[in-house]
Amino acid sequence: MKLTCTQDNFKKAIYNSERVVSKQNTLPILNNILFEGDKSGLRVSATNLEIGVTVKIGARVEKEGKITIPAKIISSFINNLPAGENITLETSDQSLKIKSGSARATIKGLSAEDFPLLPKKTANPILFIPGENLKNIITRVISCVAFNETRTELTGVNVVFGEKEIFFAATDGFRLSESIFALDDKNTNKEEYDLFRNKKDNVIIPAATLVELLRVIQSKEDSEVKITIEEGQIFFEADGTIIISRLINGKYPEYKHIMPKEYKTRVVGERSALQSAVKMASLFSGGKASEVALKISAEEKKMAVGAMSAEVGENSSELKLDVVGPSQEMVFNSKYLLDGLNTIATSKMTLLANNGSTAAALKEINEQTGEVLEGYTYIVMPIKN
Amino acid sequence: MKLTCTQDNFKKAIYNSERVVSKQNTLPILNNILFEGDKSGLRVSATNLEIGVTVKIGARVEKEGKITIPAKIISSFINNLPAGENITLETSDQSLKIKSGSARATIKGLSAEDFPLLPKKTANPILFIPGENLKNIITRVISCVAFNETRTELTGVNVVFGEKEIFFAATDGFRLSESIFALDDKNTNKEEYDLFRNKKDNVIIPAATLVELLRVIQSKEDSEVKITIEEGQIFFEADGTIIISRLINGKYPEYKHIMPKEYKTRVVGERSALQSAVKMASLFSGGKASEVALKISAEEKKMAVGAMSAEVGENSSELKLDVVGPSQEMVFNSKYLLDGLNTIATSKMTLLANNGSTAAALKEINEQTGEVLEGYTYIVMPIKN
Repeated sequence: MKLTCTQDNFKKAIYNSERVVSKQNTLPILNNILFEGDKSGLRVSATNLEIGVTVKIGARVEKEGKITIPAKIISSFINNLPAGENITLETSDQSLKIKSGSARATIKGLSAEDFPLLPKKTANPILFIPGENLKNIITRVISCVAFNETRTELTGVNVVFGEKEIFFAATDGFRLSESIFALDDKNTNKEEYDLFRNKKDNVIIPAATLVELLRVIQSKEDSEVKITIEEGQIFFEADGTIIISRLINGKYPEYKHIMPKEYKTRVVGERSALQSAVKMASLFSGGKASEVALKISAEEKKMAVGAMSAEVGENSSELKLDVVGPSQEMVFNSKYLLDGLNTIATSKMTLLANNGSTAAALKEINEQTGEVLEGYTYIVMPIKN
Repeated sequence: MKLTCTQDNFKKAIYNSERVVSKQNTLPILNNILFEGDKSGLRVSATNLEIGVTVKIGARVEKEGKITIPAKIISSFINNLPAGENITLETSDQSLKIKSGSARATIKGLSAEDFPLLPKKTANPILFIPGENLKNIITRVISCVAFNETRTELTGVNVVFGEKEIFFAATDGFRLSESIFALDDKNTNKEEYDLFRNKKDNVIIPAATLVELLRVIQSKEDSEVKITIEEGQIFFEADGTIIISRLINGKYPEYKHIMPKEYKTRVVGERSALQSAVKMASLFSGGKASEVALKISAEEKKMAVGAMSAEVGENSSELKLDVVGPSQEMVFNSKYLLDGLNTIATSKMTLLANNGSTAAALKEINEQTGEVLEGYTYIVMPIKN
């Protein structure tokens, strides 16, 4: 292999692929990145056998070929190259020679023949989702994924393919987040989407895959993620990078049942004020569940947030806010309440509740119109007294 | 005690004192901050028995008194208070009641009687150093302090009081940094300074104390640090905060001997280019010392930076730069060379050397005039071949 490419393209390819390279791998070749040059350009790939990444970049290829070299070395190396100069790669025995400006390096590698084959996509994409939307959805729902869970289905995000919307949801059994993406004609390959969802209306995507996807999606207005699903695998394509991941087998819990259809009490206020009050109270909350009490007064249009413990002392704050419906008293695990408040992106939010022993919800508020935004819901269970 | 103060002042007092509170202390009272209200205002103090901090702030004191409460609780608590409102503190039994806006807390504490007495300053300051200057000096020399060292004198910064300048130096036996502060009339209490330095011309200040001082010095043009030394203690006063620390006993090594008086070869170039080249080479350098070779060619006005190892491969970069004097070949521990380059604040730097087996120096270059700045020197020993 002998080829030349720009430093920017090469850096992007390394940046997008190096993270999936596992840190402590018993199989040395999995610490390496695969470089393949052919007439279509340079393909840079990495895998940890769960997730694979392939980045295609343009290159002037003088001689086709391939090699693998350690991700750690090439990544640190290119981060210290003087900016601007093109990069020339040339294989020589089991090594890769790199030249850029006055810098030269020969990095010892391993044969590309021993690198695991990444699954090849054969079907067409069924979904086309703008990068920014997908980023917002993932960032929110991922907060509720269970890590190190014996129920592997809870370590992923459940995606349900509806006719006019897609539901992304995650839960660890204590709280639940659901984000809805409304489909229009641009977002699907209609015929293949319907064919797919008639066979199977949901998939469970590993959280680790979505975390990688977040890194790859560029913050450009026109970036778009193409999604293809086939035989237990999902393919995300964004800006020349392909992420390939297995899907999680198993049946996702019927979470819709625990989402109340309606709420008696609706409180609307500033997110940051509630966040601060809950954080303060959590310092004083005793017990394993770090309990924080909310008292909503319908008459006085206010909410008291408080906690006490025998060791630390006690605390309370009062927040002025809009209250519709009856007064309520509820106790929450402060961590779960804070995690939820952290996922609210608007400065105003609403807390919806029925009583102190059934699920409550957090939702966003449109800052211009004051309307409740129904696209995102964070459900948290109170602690029963 | 009952008093009211502004939230900003209170936050500053907690911020400046909380850090010295030791994290895992067997003596519970050392996890606490001492609050003392009297007619002069509020004094907030903390100590880990090595370093003490006292911050004085203005307060409207209705009733004098004192108490100690856990640093961790009060610090997190005030970080979540709604901004702007004043703070009222009131002791009640062994607790401190805090009110600010609609927030209330009662934090359990321990009696102020059990808090260790901080040494009181009786002498006058001998030195007045502008905050920015002291900050720059500390930031540079501290990189060479030895941590976890059996020779305790090397865990501090040596300060030598000359007639017209003060020398700050640190070394861990492998490299050395020295920063010189030129005194003018404003900087000393002349008579007391001379009296002091006639008795004792140096002190060794613990590095941990200087790290605290860095936090306390505000980035204001007119900030000034007053320094008082008496009986094995040093006092730093800056913007209402006093840091009290023991000095290190022991004899500091005669480091001036290892600083060459002159250098045969002088290289001048861009700091960042040399940093990148050394970082790149360090990826390829084998052996415990992470060896990087510099080859300075006087004829070609360039320097080659390179390394090789049997496992990783090899690397070299060439830098164009000004060379005065004979060619040189030297091998350095890449970490020590990089640590030195990181302390150079100017974009151009000079490397000064005599041969491959005696100390080399890094210095800063005035970016306007191109002159060598003599105020700061980083000395690094080459690895003998």
